[in-house]
Amino acid sequence: MDHTNPQLLSQSDLRTLTTASCSASYPPNSDSLLLNGEPSDITGARTQACIRELRARRKALEDKDPSQPKLSEQSLKLVSENNFPTAAGLASSAAGFAALVRAVADLYQLPDTPDELSLIARQGSGSACRSLFGGYVAWRMGSKEDGSDSKADLVAEASHWPEMRALILVVSAAKKGVSSSSGMQQTVATSGLFAERVRTIVPKNMDLMEKAIREKDFGLFGEVTMRESNSFHATCADTYPPIFYMNDVSRAAVRAVEKINQAAGRTVAAYTFDAGPNCVVYYLEKDQAAVVGTFNALLAETEGWKAAAKDIKADVEVDLDETVVTTLKSGVSRIIQTGVGEGPVKTDEMLVTEDGEVAKR
Amino acid sequence: MDHTNPQLLSQSDLRTLTTASCSASYPPNSDSLLLNGEPSDITGARTQACIRELRARRKALEDKDPSQPKLSEQSLKLVSENNFPTAAGLASSAAGFAALVRAVADLYQLPDTPDELSLIARQGSGSACRSLFGGYVAWRMGSKEDGSDSKADLVAEASHWPEMRALILVVSAAKKGVSSSSGMQQTVATSGLFAERVRTIVPKNMDLMEKAIREKDFGLFGEVTMRESNSFHATCADTYPPIFYMNDVSRAAVRAVEKINQAAGRTVAAYTFDAGPNCVVYYLEKDQAAVVGTFNALLAETEGWKAAAKDIKADVEVDLDETVVTTLKSGVSRIIQTGVGEGPVKTDEMLVTEDGEVAKR
Repeated sequence: MDHTNPQLLSQSDLRTLTTASCSASYPPNSDSLLLNGEPSDITGARTQACIRELRARRKALEDKDPSQPKLSEQSLKLVSENNFPTAAGLASSAAGFAALVRAVADLYQLPDTPDELSLIARQGSGSACRSLFGGYVAWRMGSKEDGSDSKADLVAEASHWPEMRALILVVSAAKKGVSSSSGMQQTVATSGLFAERVRTIVPKNMDLMEKAIREKDFGLFGEVTMRESNSFHATCADTYPPIFYMNDVSRAAVRAVEKINQAAGRTVAAYTFDAGPNCVVYYLEKDQAAVVGTFNALLAETEGWKAAAKDIKADVEVDLDETVVTTLKSGVSRIIQTGVGEGPVKTDEMLVTEDGEVAKR
Repeated sequence: MDHTNPQLLSQSDLRTLTTASCSASYPPNSDSLLLNGEPSDITGARTQACIRELRARRKALEDKDPSQPKLSEQSLKLVSENNFPTAAGLASSAAGFAALVRAVADLYQLPDTPDELSLIARQGSGSACRSLFGGYVAWRMGSKEDGSDSKADLVAEASHWPEMRALILVVSAAKKGVSSSSGMQQTVATSGLFAERVRTIVPKNMDLMEKAIREKDFGLFGEVTMRESNSFHATCADTYPPIFYMNDVSRAAVRAVEKINQAAGRTVAAYTFDAGPNCVVYYLEKDQAAVVGTFNALLAETEGWKAAAKDIKADVEVDLDETVVTTLKSGVSRIIQTGVGEGPVKTDEMLVTEDGEVAKR
């Protein structure tokens, strides 16, 4: 599946901090992951595929240069912390996989480029491959049947179009529909419309999206973003049995964005939905009055707003449907305001001490 | 849009009674419709197209045989009553248009077959063309660009497979999403997936559905019904802006049907959704324990159940998700239990008296 998405989770707003460590003193074959203080299962096929691939690359280095310490033979102790609720389901596993891959690659001193690492991360989480970059990233499906060559490409650095912002409406978990784990595979296997999407819709949207980003054309960017999201969720609904990621709250957010654009007389906001009910609303900083102003007036009581948000007043009256208002008020549990992110950053903060213990922080 | 659907609204359960009258004593150019006691607007283009077409056919009769009274020059007084809430949105306009067309055609003594009348009704309401038949009806899209030759064909009489039943979960209007009037035209114009649906999915489903009905194969019937519904709503969601007919209650009904089938180990129930959130669940009478039994246990408090329903106990334990249970309990406002209908029936009940007054009943 190709997607072109700005990689919008700025490190200052949303962050996964992951430390990878290995030591001859750790018990053999005891790879572990502590996620937000809780032991986390890493025996799943996808996580194991990532770790196996990274270890194989380390092994190749060691074989070539026998002076290298045999890290590939040692157990890995991974410790990771998110500053956002994992329950939000906001591509947290994608960010987690990307951070994990980057951290282990750094530990192993692998020479691989973000491009190459994105191929590995993709095995852990489809969308993780995007998270190894900042800026505007295209997620390409590749040509192989099994998707093994699907990866992310940088379309433009964050600095190319730094005015891009995102307002994320996190939908309360209670309202969450029935999720699906092996969603995309089911869609490929059973949707009668999916092949057409891959053949014509996605390539067209990819081209348009790259053009929109290159030319910093928000009108085009917004329309393609919304159409692409609609098309993706359409093929989910066409899956048998159908997959529903969006719920009534998500749909109310779609209607609110439409009304904001109508009131502005142009596309100032664009919704998109990943594999979950949360709505990401893109906008340019210059249009924050119309977008942030409207949502803040509506959802002032919702947690997560930056302090400055309450000073941003809508410059036009947006005539929201009463059902849309009540649905959003009762269904949005948290707001995240963010910008275009910088991609993974190496830090000196360590979550594992020199002697292999979890760091006290 | 081709659809093969059993025409399941049995006259004994759901009924639109329409009387068409005309008289030289009515004021000229004063066509009117009284719907459930309220004056109803018939100036819309679609209603006008139906009336114009019927009147033109009457005019042709009168021109050919000058002994015929000049009914085509008189105003029409139409009076219609539904025994189900129009708020339910349950193809009430479709049934209404079909009854209206049939009533006027009878008044005008038009020689047209149901087949030909379905072409006229289609102009009033896309799905109305189906309502001119009983039994199992295929709604064919025709070959003309403007859809003017789309019509309904009888695939099989109701008597061919009389064991077919439907349980309709009417979703409370308060939960209803934002509707769309010109939905299908928007879908044709903007959905990137729609052309593929018309080209490959619908013809395939039509063939399979006819085969399923011919062979009375409920397993096939059910799967095609569900896939067809999924595909239709997928192209609605792929419309720009997207059209959402189903809501969280509708989706909970989908999950309940899936669980009922899982528990039974085969397809005993099939959901389908028209242009609205209400769920029609098809089943065979022999499987009423699994289907009616499960829904009745869950929605015993909901109005509309036939008296006998409470004696039908589920024969297998269906493990419904808690969210599904609460969503259905709070969101389904009414149950309609029905069978395969007999199509329009001419009655002697008149809603307009000989002197043009609305009959007291």
